[in-house]
Amino acid sequence: MRTAFYISDGTAITSEVFGHALLSLFPVEFNHDTISFVETLDKAYETRDKINRAAKRAGEPPLVFHTFVNPEIREIIDSSDAIIYNFLEHFVSPLEQQLGVSAKPKAHRTHSIHENSYDYRIDAVNYSLANDDGSNISNYEHADVILVGVSRSGKTPTSLYLALQYGIKAANYPFTDDDMDDLTLPDFLIPHKKKIFGLTIDAPRLMDIREGRMANSKYSSARQCRMEVREVEKLYKKEKIPYLNTTKFSVEEITAKILNETGLQRYKY
Amino acid sequence: MRTAFYISDGTAITSEVFGHALLSLFPVEFNHDTISFVETLDKAYETRDKINRAAKRAGEPPLVFHTFVNPEIREIIDSSDAIIYNFLEHFVSPLEQQLGVSAKPKAHRTHSIHENSYDYRIDAVNYSLANDDGSNISNYEHADVILVGVSRSGKTPTSLYLALQYGIKAANYPFTDDDMDDLTLPDFLIPHKKKIFGLTIDAPRLMDIREGRMANSKYSSARQCRMEVREVEKLYKKEKIPYLNTTKFSVEEITAKILNETGLQRYKY
Repeated sequence: MRTAFYISDGTAITSEVFGHALLSLFPVEFNHDTISFVETLDKAYETRDKINRAAKRAGEPPLVFHTFVNPEIREIIDSSDAIIYNFLEHFVSPLEQQLGVSAKPKAHRTHSIHENSYDYRIDAVNYSLANDDGSNISNYEHADVILVGVSRSGKTPTSLYLALQYGIKAANYPFTDDDMDDLTLPDFLIPHKKKIFGLTIDAPRLMDIREGRMANSKYSSARQCRMEVREVEKLYKKEKIPYLNTTKFSVEEITAKILNETGLQRYKY
Repeated sequence: MRTAFYISDGTAITSEVFGHALLSLFPVEFNHDTISFVETLDKAYETRDKINRAAKRAGEPPLVFHTFVNPEIREIIDSSDAIIYNFLEHFVSPLEQQLGVSAKPKAHRTHSIHENSYDYRIDAVNYSLANDDGSNISNYEHADVILVGVSRSGKTPTSLYLALQYGIKAANYPFTDDDMDDLTLPDFLIPHKKKIFGLTIDAPRLMDIREGRMANSKYSSARQCRMEVREVEKLYKKEKIPYLNTTKFSVEEITAKILNETGLQRYKY
């Protein structure tokens, strides 16, 4: 099988996103290989050898997605037996012309600790963990957003993604079985109502997820799942809480939709 | 100030990474605005109006980074008073030629729930949370990696990043003050030694972080921080545990270095 390489002198996250976005348009299978921190000439030669071995093995040239700005390292990689896709080269000079400034490749590296947003993000992760799953209901004045919903509707992964990627302090609070009779907003949430965002999920999907956790329980029964979903959606409507059905969406999509809807500021750019 | 827009019919994560990687090469400030889920002609016209208003306000054309494949929506965005950077268009036809296949833009969308890796990632997040901070020492046989280190050396954010981004089940175990006299590997870790990866951190940086959490405590004292760091590093060397000093690295960089060193398989591509 042909190999797609994602290579960079840093984390190679940009190369991965770049290559992945392109290859996902094609119904073709690849081996994938990420090579990060190619920061020295030695490492560059070693990487070229690896690419050339993959070329020989497959009998066709690998695809290489890279973002090198250092010209010496770039030339070594570009000289391998591969098809090179260099995402930066097409855009840097048009941008230089447009901005009237030269690119300063060493100025700062994306995905490094030197990004302004870095401390925000770590603080937000700590906040979101400490305020996960209703574990700390006295701390909501510091939240940027409070996700609510029934157990297993997607609150925790979404809170963590908001925090890790965007530096947003996302608490989350689960409505439990005990809350479910004639559901109302708990007292401690009322002062923070403007920060609340609701998640819901189709009952059959909720059942599936809960079965994986606790098979043949009341918690995972069709009846219980249907009742909980019905109750929370009624609550969202009654209280005019914005909400989203997560059934068909990934964490990335849920997060993007919450950011859209709430206009929350992202600390990462 | 000039605005940079990141626009897409999905999450716009690819557009953000694309624009961010380029703009970080320039010492120029921008307003940043992400517009996701531009899926209809109406939304496209609305987006164009927003771009045009920003152009008027700033007196210069905004920069627009987009990844549209739908030609109707793309044309509307391309007709706004902006400089358009379309990351896909430069690469799709060379790739089509190389692969001998036409791109199928609707085949599957990146960052969606339809990616093969999606369930792995959610399972990994649940695993990493349940096995954070030594909370579940009986469950390490299911771990892909076990991060160890002193309190506040970066274990938790790194575990979560490994899980969320790459679907890797990362447990973490903190060495505490009680472990610190003549530190040895706890019994329950010994059978899983091959999965252990150590983190360390410079004592002054550790002190800073701990001061923010618990000022003027033994926990945050210079002496304690120095002693703990010295002890764990001694342990890593004695036990031949691979380790990394996290002081100067972001979560993304720490993660990439761990993947490099361990050769762990990523479930996301």
